[in-house]
Amino acid sequence: MAQENLSVVLHSQGDLRLENRSVPEPGPNEVLIQMHSVGICGSDVHYWQHGRIGHFVLNKPMVLGHEASGRVMKVGSAVMHLKEGDRVAIEPGVPREMDEFFKNGRYNLSPTIFFCATPPDDGNLCRYYKHNANFCYKLPDNVTFEEGALIEPLSVGIHACRRAGVTIGSTVLICGAGPIGLVCLLVAKAMGASQVVITDLLPERLTMAKELGADFQLPVKGGHGPQQLAKTVEDTLGAQPHITIECTGNESSIQTAIYATHSGGVVVLVGLGSEMSTVPLVNAAVRELDIRGVFRYCNTWPTAIAMLASGKVNVKPLVTHRFPLEQAVQAFDTTRQGLGIKVMLKCDQNDQST
Amino acid sequence: MAQENLSVVLHSQGDLRLENRSVPEPGPNEVLIQMHSVGICGSDVHYWQHGRIGHFVLNKPMVLGHEASGRVMKVGSAVMHLKEGDRVAIEPGVPREMDEFFKNGRYNLSPTIFFCATPPDDGNLCRYYKHNANFCYKLPDNVTFEEGALIEPLSVGIHACRRAGVTIGSTVLICGAGPIGLVCLLVAKAMGASQVVITDLLPERLTMAKELGADFQLPVKGGHGPQQLAKTVEDTLGAQPHITIECTGNESSIQTAIYATHSGGVVVLVGLGSEMSTVPLVNAAVRELDIRGVFRYCNTWPTAIAMLASGKVNVKPLVTHRFPLEQAVQAFDTTRQGLGIKVMLKCDQNDQST
Amino acid sequence: MAQENLSVVLHSQGDLRLENRSVPEPGPNEVLIQMHSVGICGSDVHYWQHGRIGHFVLNKPMVLGHEASGRVMKVGSAVMHLKEGDRVAIEPGVPREMDEFFKNGRYNLSPTIFFCATPPDDGNLCRYYKHNANFCYKLPDNVTFEEGALIEPLSVGIHACRRAGVTIGSTVLICGAGPIGLVCLLVAKAMGASQVVITDLLPERLTMAKELGADFQLPVKGGHGPQQLAKTVEDTLGAQPHITIECTGNESSIQTAIYATHSGGVVVLVGLGSEMSTVPLVNAAVRELDIRGVFRYCNTWPTAIAMLASGKVNVKPLVTHRFPLEQAVQAFDTTRQGLGIKVMLKCDQNDQST
Amino acid sequence: MAQENLSVVLHSQGDLRLENRSVPEPGPNEVLIQMHSVGICGSDVHYWQHGRIGHFVLNKPMVLGHEASGRVMKVGSAVMHLKEGDRVAIEPGVPREMDEFFKNGRYNLSPTIFFCATPPDDGNLCRYYKHNANFCYKLPDNVTFEEGALIEPLSVGIHACRRAGVTIGSTVLICGAGPIGLVCLLVAKAMGASQVVITDLLPERLTMAKELGADFQLPVKGGHGPQQLAKTVEDTLGAQPHITIECTGNESSIQTAIYATHSGGVVVLVGLGSEMSTVPLVNAAVRELDIRGVFRYCNTWPTAIAMLASGKVNVKPLVTHRFPLEQAVQAFDTTRQGLGIKVMLKCDQNDQST
Repeated sequence: MAQENLSVVLHSQGDLRLENRSVPEPGPNEVLIQMHSVGICGSDVHYWQHGRIGHFVLNKPMVLGHEASGRVMKVGSAVMHLKEGDRVAIEPGVPREMDEFFKNGRYNLSPTIFFCATPPDDGNLCRYYKHNANFCYKLPDNVTFEEGALIEPLSVGIHACRRAGVTIGSTVLICGAGPIGLVCLLVAKAMGASQVVITDLLPERLTMAKELGADFQLPVKGGHGPQQLAKTVEDTLGAQPHITIECTGNESSIQTAIYATHSGGVVVLVGLGSEMSTVPLVNAAVRELDIRGVFRYCNTWPTAIAMLASGKVNVKPLVTHRFPLEQAVQAFDTTRQGLGIKVMLKCDQNDQST
Repeated sequence: MAQENLSVVLHSQGDLRLENRSVPEPGPNEVLIQMHSVGICGSDVHYWQHGRIGHFVLNKPMVLGHEASGRVMKVGSAVMHLKEGDRVAIEPGVPREMDEFFKNGRYNLSPTIFFCATPPDDGNLCRYYKHNANFCYKLPDNVTFEEGALIEPLSVGIHACRRAGVTIGSTVLICGAGPIGLVCLLVAKAMGASQVVITDLLPERLTMAKELGADFQLPVKGGHGPQQLAKTVEDTLGAQPHITIECTGNESSIQTAIYATHSGGVVVLVGLGSEMSTVPLVNAAVRELDIRGVFRYCNTWPTAIAMLASGKVNVKPLVTHRFPLEQAVQAFDTTRQGLGIKVMLKCDQNDQST
Repeated sequence: MAQENLSVVLHSQGDLRLENRSVPEPGPNEVLIQMHSVGICGSDVHYWQHGRIGHFVLNKPMVLGHEASGRVMKVGSAVMHLKEGDRVAIEPGVPREMDEFFKNGRYNLSPTIFFCATPPDDGNLCRYYKHNANFCYKLPDNVTFEEGALIEPLSVGIHACRRAGVTIGSTVLICGAGPIGLVCLLVAKAMGASQVVITDLLPERLTMAKELGADFQLPVKGGHGPQQLAKTVEDTLGAQPHITIECTGNESSIQTAIYATHSGGVVVLVGLGSEMSTVPLVNAAVRELDIRGVFRYCNTWPTAIAMLASGKVNVKPLVTHRFPLEQAVQAFDTTRQGLGIKVMLKCDQNDQST
Repeated sequence: MAQENLSVVLHSQGDLRLENRSVPEPGPNEVLIQMHSVGICGSDVHYWQHGRIGHFVLNKPMVLGHEASGRVMKVGSAVMHLKEGDRVAIEPGVPREMDEFFKNGRYNLSPTIFFCATPPDDGNLCRYYKHNANFCYKLPDNVTFEEGALIEPLSVGIHACRRAGVTIGSTVLICGAGPIGLVCLLVAKAMGASQVVITDLLPERLTMAKELGADFQLPVKGGHGPQQLAKTVEDTLGAQPHITIECTGNESSIQTAIYATHSGGVVVLVGLGSEMSTVPLVNAAVRELDIRGVFRYCNTWPTAIAMLASGKVNVKPLVTHRFPLEQAVQAFDTTRQGLGIKVMLKCDQNDQST
């Protein structure tokens, strides 16, 4: 058994450290996992830079990381579906209570849920990590560890597109071509969207979106008002999109989302911005838009694994940078600078494969 | 055949006149109706006072009225399901095109729909009126003409509660106890809501709500902030309501609606206020609220008739004032002053019954 | 603490005994309950008479009973939401695994679920019983113990009517006026059904259905073919019902259900009969019926409690017989003979109240 | 203007003739179409061979054909969205009444619907044909006439997969690899199905299914019982499929569909066989399957055009034979013999392109 457990620990705003923690012992319903690949999320960087996200405030040191995969090292006494050596993807949210949300299948809304790297719960950017076995999913042989780690952001896309009701022939506007906008793009196409138009401020992100299958890319410029941009979307598609997936949280972009969406259509709010937003609600109301909130995901891992195993979704191009765990600070800085799309940390000293 | 057709015509903002128009001749798919009871809607008064509602502007004289029932006098050559003498309720919206909205069952969203007393389309506050027979519904013997006229506001409640997904055991907050809030109350209870709490500024409206079945009445006072009011709602019910039906359009009330609603729940926007509203969208997003617009109704008349005929909904207490058609201006002034709930105009000189 | 635990134990087909068992000790997530009222279900009697239901075979002695309420006597160390003295209703099905069904909100389909009085799991027809606290629901003061016990059959009605999509204005055919047909009737009316027609072979059951709110009662006679009966239903309602809830399992009745239901409507299968049935599937297919299976229930206790507490549903008339626990065999015989509707056993020697 | 209108007319069972009819004159809401490509459907051949399908009986000569596209030659006075020269696909079902089905978006269930080549309504296997313009859809430049004609069978697949709820990660069993099974395969994959297994008696059909994207092909042999075949499906996928699309109508295959489908899943009935079928309804009920009928389609043409225009679905390989209209009898005989998949008739003497 390993003796030390190198971990990426955020002590306080701006104070990110690599330090050794003890190797945990799994409980009866848990597995101990030798971590392999862990992606850096914008939220990890946000905690590092700001020490908080909304009501979630860092009050004590916390291990970061929640986009993760690894190999089972030890199995709790009550665990039946996993065995030592299994390669698994980790769903970071584990409900603590059998409350109404868990019972009716929306456990992501459970207010007491455990969630990796959301204060005060530790994440899994480390060598060895234990997790509830029911939220570890065995990876088929043809799905790599990095794909396993990418199931977490892919899940955001799956949940958003499900909430949006994307289906065959849907036309979709995606606001924002960052990692979340891009996974929404991949999922929307896989669910049968006939046309996806995507917006962003940065041309290089739009280029990546094009490579990943976007039908149209719209650069957003400062001078454009929301109604003008909505009109451009309509002109581009030949009609208003049935669905808009808003991934920026920006007030102006939310306004565009509402103006742009077809009557009877759906706007999903994935991006989070200011607590209060000024939006054209009368326009939304009289055209019977549905504006639907999205918070993380639930019931997505089996779906994502099925899609990756069958080759229906290709997430591999999302990984643009890789660092060994020891270089975590450099890796975080890469994400902070907005370089590339997804930075992957390699946690296993003996296996830095993709 | 009648020679003159006394009609309530709005000539321009503030210029409401009673004048004789010719009796129309029904086309092949139409019926001519001798009007019996027509309710006055807030929108009728709004056109009278302001000459417009949003983008709908009165540019030429228009007959008012769209909450209506009457008796078939003459039947177009292609009409099969109605005959002379049938008592009918009139659905005021008639799609003009077989567009995508009509084909998929949401014809209320059709942008070219005909709608009584929405400029430039004439309403039915007159003695004789012709209408597409497919949007006239025969009333059973045990449903009165006034109930038939009240199907229009009741339809707003049915459509709103359907969009909200009210079902058995739902807890519901209704913001606003005017005529629309009250029909939403009646419908929510009929659909199985276990508890309904209703808010208003005016105590007399809350008293009426109590008589119509509200479980709790909350007076809204100036000093209350939205979050405080939301907390009061939660304390009143013992939990946040699953559903909020916002009937005021007031920004503060929309904020309350969002704060008050249970995670995973639904807010429907029935009331229309300012074009832009400042609302806590992050709160809505992270708790996965659905904010759903509501515009008029579709496919509600058969449902409403079934409910009235079976006695499951009692709308009769909503009618607080009655005037003969000749006193239409006085009737409009009663509604303008906010007296009572629903003012009914009696259009048939020989039958002023309820 | 009590020393003995009188229990109704089925040893083998036909061999029903009252015997003392030890008082169980609740685990950390459990509560020990002093049982108060337990209804006898047809399935209890079926196990007694036949020793099996389908694939479920009695292989060792089993305590019967699963329609139950009682008072919390002892609380496991991890239980937060209940305390000693709380009056609770017991949901008899408790999922053992966090499998896909539990995660997506349909835990009743979990193949490894614990279920009271389904072999080999013991039921709660006894003095003292321990149960997973997450599936015990506190009763409000204005809901009686017997109402609490009746939540179980009521839940079958709630789940069936939800699966059926009963809503405002629905017209509903219920096949069979036994206890399950009657709870479906109560729930359908509470969900807004405008008209319910109910069928049965026995006139006294139809009389009870009428008292409970059925709009029409149709006696089924031997000579009636399914298509003829379907026609009678249509003639009675003036149109085919939107929804049929089949509670008999009888092949002829399932055929009637299909023929009778309106195009685009729903048939739910609540009653279970022979493994194979011969039914008019082409008729169902070309009229786009949905034929939906129903198995027990999930997520119904909070709904049922809300409805009982608000007085929206009155289940009290369902209880027609009461026996002290000591007279359990006599009570079972009463149900076996088809007398009355629901027989209730009173398990608390010091409190035999309703 | 053309003077003669060569048409494929079925006079009575077995009596198929090519004859000249007059060129029709379009009414105000109609367009006259110069037919280009018309596919032969199994139902066309069935009418030829048997003179009836179920309750639809040929009582007078009828033009066959309902999978069609062509070019607008003349436009009725009220038609706004089409002009002469437009290339259009024709939806063969046109509701005649604004009944409840049409109003609520399920017009395919309207009992009085006009439908090409269903007695007594004439189809469009001819040179010139007039049709309600609202059910003619303009084809984009990059969608060929033959693709336009194939929208009809593709619509069956779209409607079946929508009714089935196919979505991202669905696993699907398709029973039958004829033209309808194959379009269901194409659509299921386009909607995000991760794995599709398809069955048939004929190996050449399974080969075609493989080429079109099926993940697994299962030959059905005489000796296989439904439960055994269901077990093979489960073994093949590693789990029971979420959804089964039954395209044969064969009783044994419907039994397989029920046994094979995952608990909580959906079976859609596309194929039509004997009026009565003996099926394991208890198995379906206790596992809460939904068995959903499918009848033709509604609201599919715009979706199909979007998918074809975007290249998301490729139907071109389905066309295996082509004949000029003059050789219609030979073309029908090709379909009757079960050769290839889809036989296309070319109706325009001057343009026999694909």
